[in-house]
Amino acid sequence: MSALRLHIQNPPHDPVFSFTDQQWRAALGRSPDMDFIEVSISNDAREFDEALEKAEVLLTWVNIVRDRLRAGDLQRIAPRLRIISCNSAGVDRLAPFDWLPSAVTLLNNSGIHSDKAGEFGLMALLMLHNQMPRLIKAQAERSWNAVHASTIRGRRLCIVGMGSLGSGVARRARALGMYVIGVRNGAEAHPDCDETVAVSELDSVLPRVDDVLLACPLTEHTRNLLSRERIAKLRRGARVVNIARGAVWDQEAICDALESEQLEAVFTDVTVPEPLPASHRLWGTRGMIMTPHIGADDQERYNDVTLDILLENLRADRAGKRLPNRVDPEKGY
Amino acid sequence: MSALRLHIQNPPHDPVFSFTDQQWRAALGRSPDMDFIEVSISNDAREFDEALEKAEVLLTWVNIVRDRLRAGDLQRIAPRLRIISCNSAGVDRLAPFDWLPSAVTLLNNSGIHSDKAGEFGLMALLMLHNQMPRLIKAQAERSWNAVHASTIRGRRLCIVGMGSLGSGVARRARALGMYVIGVRNGAEAHPDCDETVAVSELDSVLPRVDDVLLACPLTEHTRNLLSRERIAKLRRGARVVNIARGAVWDQEAICDALESEQLEAVFTDVTVPEPLPASHRLWGTRGMIMTPHIGADDQERYNDVTLDILLENLRADRAGKRLPNRVDPEKGY
Repeated sequence: MSALRLHIQNPPHDPVFSFTDQQWRAALGRSPDMDFIEVSISNDAREFDEALEKAEVLLTWVNIVRDRLRAGDLQRIAPRLRIISCNSAGVDRLAPFDWLPSAVTLLNNSGIHSDKAGEFGLMALLMLHNQMPRLIKAQAERSWNAVHASTIRGRRLCIVGMGSLGSGVARRARALGMYVIGVRNGAEAHPDCDETVAVSELDSVLPRVDDVLLACPLTEHTRNLLSRERIAKLRRGARVVNIARGAVWDQEAICDALESEQLEAVFTDVTVPEPLPASHRLWGTRGMIMTPHIGADDQERYNDVTLDILLENLRADRAGKRLPNRVDPEKGY
Repeated sequence: MSALRLHIQNPPHDPVFSFTDQQWRAALGRSPDMDFIEVSISNDAREFDEALEKAEVLLTWVNIVRDRLRAGDLQRIAPRLRIISCNSAGVDRLAPFDWLPSAVTLLNNSGIHSDKAGEFGLMALLMLHNQMPRLIKAQAERSWNAVHASTIRGRRLCIVGMGSLGSGVARRARALGMYVIGVRNGAEAHPDCDETVAVSELDSVLPRVDDVLLACPLTEHTRNLLSRERIAKLRRGARVVNIARGAVWDQEAICDALESEQLEAVFTDVTVPEPLPASHRLWGTRGMIMTPHIGADDQERYNDVTLDILLENLRADRAGKRLPNRVDPEKGY
């Protein structure tokens, strides 16, 4: 079997998420059928240029693709490149995709976040239902203020986006007895949902749910999807969780709705911009819990699972099958 | 069928948890076979005295039992009383039980907290694993500090006490892929645990778990169960959740272990004393999340479920069966 040249380009300085030789060997240990791959790993810009002359497959960060490949003449820089694999699930920073030759396949890292984001999204729902925004404030003020709450069991949750993140939350929320309505491009059934509706029907779903969780990719179709008008359609006291992208909702309208108490509480892992400036109102808005875009990343297992997902795709490629993580440039995910 | 006289005594002022006629009628609607019960409901002290002259069953608050019944001559005050039902799961405030005539059965409200406490305990575990103590601090400081974490899936959880609270957490933690070791009086298997051990073996379990969750009743056997010596047996970086009683652990030793970073993070819903004075170190100890004893109480459903549990016991009583919520005065729960 002929060799396949894979290059992994790390950022110059990232001690946490940089791939190591050891991780690569461990991944091959889990996929011994893939030992025909010749790998090079670097975090040096000059070595990157040299590697691109020969590499057929590249695994790297979306920002490196944007800065080094999208900006230039890809076929001249990397004449043999067939597959670009990004280690993030979202590739919205590479859109529009007119820079991508049709002979080159772009892969995202969808699936990497399912367990971690599923747990994180469930935690966010539990925290909002248990009145943690008020309880956290009370602790900070050293004030013993009992605030009672009820269960998430029996509540109605609308999840926008039933990909890897959304289904990871849906599965867990249903295990705890929530009724889950999944919002998808089409209305086809989903095994982790009690009900699915097409995104075109979103307006009719919003008034009848207790919670909304945003878990869709950011595309031109989902930008400002949870708009000021749609937030107003939610029942008073509803709760919203955002583990998608900050631009999927109207961030100012969310803050307004918290201040007017139309929304009871909100949890977001994403903001516009990121990092969020210290002066931004979102940090201190009543009822808001904010985390710095960490919810979906499993530090311990991230690189291992990333390599497993890449190898699964390369296995499909070798077998002439559809690559499960292929990004459709038309859709943007 | 002869009538049964039930009196429900509410506290003088408790708009949240006081029982109402409407709740009683709704409970009878769910248990139409129990319509032979004659009920009186009051929050007045003089009406209470009158009702006690005739009542066979009393449903009330543990503090009312302590102040009005435990202190006096029960057989004189309430000559016909056969069953005292407390609306709390823990009745440690009534111990020792030498005031209780052998002809009177004491019932607790065990089972009331299973769903709410199960969700709350799971939330606590997720918050500690997701580094929420550090992330909450960062939000308060308006500081965009990424702190990454891993999943609870695959971690080992030791639950001390496999009653209603413990099993409520165990079931949910296992649904999310945790390995659950239940600690019980005996070592008999439990359907919600991967493994059970007797409390006498606790010392051998502590070094091999990632998390400990306390969910046992407070008795003379469980007081200071998680002592300073036992905390030292936990692996460095372990996490502890307490939804039992503050006296079940060594509260000062827990704070010390957080400050020395032997423990990564701790979540407690219970303290000594309650309410906790504003000057107490626990409020501000690094890595500590504290809530004011609200985790197990489901405000919306509490009275409905309490009445259902009482009626289930009265049904067993009428049928001459064992009352499921009977407190064993020897054990204290």
